[in-house]
Amino acid sequence: MIVSVTLNPCVDRVVFVSGLKVGDTNRVDRVETDAGGKGVNLSRVVAELGGKTIATGFLGGGNGAHIRHVLHAQGVHNSFVEIAGTTRVNTSIEAGDGPPTTLNEAGPQISDEEWHRLLAHCETLFHRADWVALGGSLPPGVPVDAFRALGELARRESCRVLLDADGEAMRLGLQMRPDLIKPNLREAERLLGKTLPDRAAAVSAARELRSMAENVIVSMGKDGAALATAGGVWLGRSPQVEPR
Amino acid sequence: MIVSVTLNPCVDRVVFVSGLKVGDTNRVDRVETDAGGKGVNLSRVVAELGGKTIATGFLGGGNGAHIRHVLHAQGVHNSFVEIAGTTRVNTSIEAGDGPPTTLNEAGPQISDEEWHRLLAHCETLFHRADWVALGGSLPPGVPVDAFRALGELARRESCRVLLDADGEAMRLGLQMRPDLIKPNLREAERLLGKTLPDRAAAVSAARELRSMAENVIVSMGKDGAALATAGGVWLGRSPQVEPR
Repeated sequence: MIVSVTLNPCVDRVVFVSGLKVGDTNRVDRVETDAGGKGVNLSRVVAELGGKTIATGFLGGGNGAHIRHVLHAQGVHNSFVEIAGTTRVNTSIEAGDGPPTTLNEAGPQISDEEWHRLLAHCETLFHRADWVALGGSLPPGVPVDAFRALGELARRESCRVLLDADGEAMRLGLQMRPDLIKPNLREAERLLGKTLPDRAAAVSAARELRSMAENVIVSMGKDGAALATAGGVWLGRSPQVEPR
Repeated sequence: MIVSVTLNPCVDRVVFVSGLKVGDTNRVDRVETDAGGKGVNLSRVVAELGGKTIATGFLGGGNGAHIRHVLHAQGVHNSFVEIAGTTRVNTSIEAGDGPPTTLNEAGPQISDEEWHRLLAHCETLFHRADWVALGGSLPPGVPVDAFRALGELARRESCRVLLDADGEAMRLGLQMRPDLIKPNLREAERLLGKTLPDRAAAVSAARELRSMAENVIVSMGKDGAALATAGGVWLGRSPQVEPR
């Protein structure tokens, strides 16, 4: 069973308008909404593939109720810690001309008490888990070494750990040496402090990153992904898909 | 007891950013969210004043769950009909420079079956009501004479009826001669087909509109409101408030 932890989930909204008029009234043509956040998305895919998973993390307010409703409708088991604040919404306005206009919220303030409630809750859930997936951004108030703390908790419950984050939260999380990380090219460049100009460089980067994690996937979008393990390095190519 | 009917409620979101960058990523400073719609707002005020009220209408999807959560937290009793579609969100982006950029959704498609389910549900609720408040916009699929049908249903249950709408839905709703309407100046102008240039004109408009409804309030924003009844016409002045 895979437990995913999303500390800063969001309601993802994509709003389609025919040309965005600033300072004016815009009629919305269509909206797409989903429950978002790295762990939430992972649990959705695991559930779609027929695997066992539970999504956890923090949820609060009307947007928290929204996410529970969506996950229930999608058949994604979840057991979030209810907080006093309100879960964020990320809005993307697609006006049909050029890149979208996005409105990104930082997320609710998490209290010390809520953070410790999450740790206790995770301890219970990790007891039944084989893998723990940690990822995404940290909401205000959560300690910056949150992923290290959660990863060490997972280790004590004999779980393997996937870490998928960025920046300082990722750097500190790596100190517990995860079983799997999956940086994209930009994130791999930041981890190694150098540019990765081509596929060959990405492949050797995946191998090099094994100093930080047991298994490494460097994803390259339409160019596929490189997986480095103790047994060697594999290169996967992406099937061609129609972008939406 | 006052039953409010909101056929097209919404999640109201006001998003504050420091200057809106179109086609780019914007960091949200602050968000205000509430459950919206004419009847929902009316029920909220009635509940705040200690009166008995139930809010009804259509709710669906994650946004419906959001609204139920907010109303529960605010202590507003509600009994909405669950629909297959998703309740809309109205977004207002305040960038601190000039008028807001608003994103207005039409609302979910209502099926014939859902409309008749609402009528049956209202019949039960109206049985216990003294007043029925009807108002706001109509979601796609609802018959344009919806307010007339609901008003006649209220009459059969011996309720008095407040109608607060606009356009064709209002015009048809007036055919059941409501006990109270409360147009603002612009709406009163549209109902009478003439301009109302000053307060004196608004007062005589309130009297004139009694051909359409038993009691009439014409609201004039900061200039107060005129109430016309069988007993005469009253002029109320607004207290001065700080705009947000």
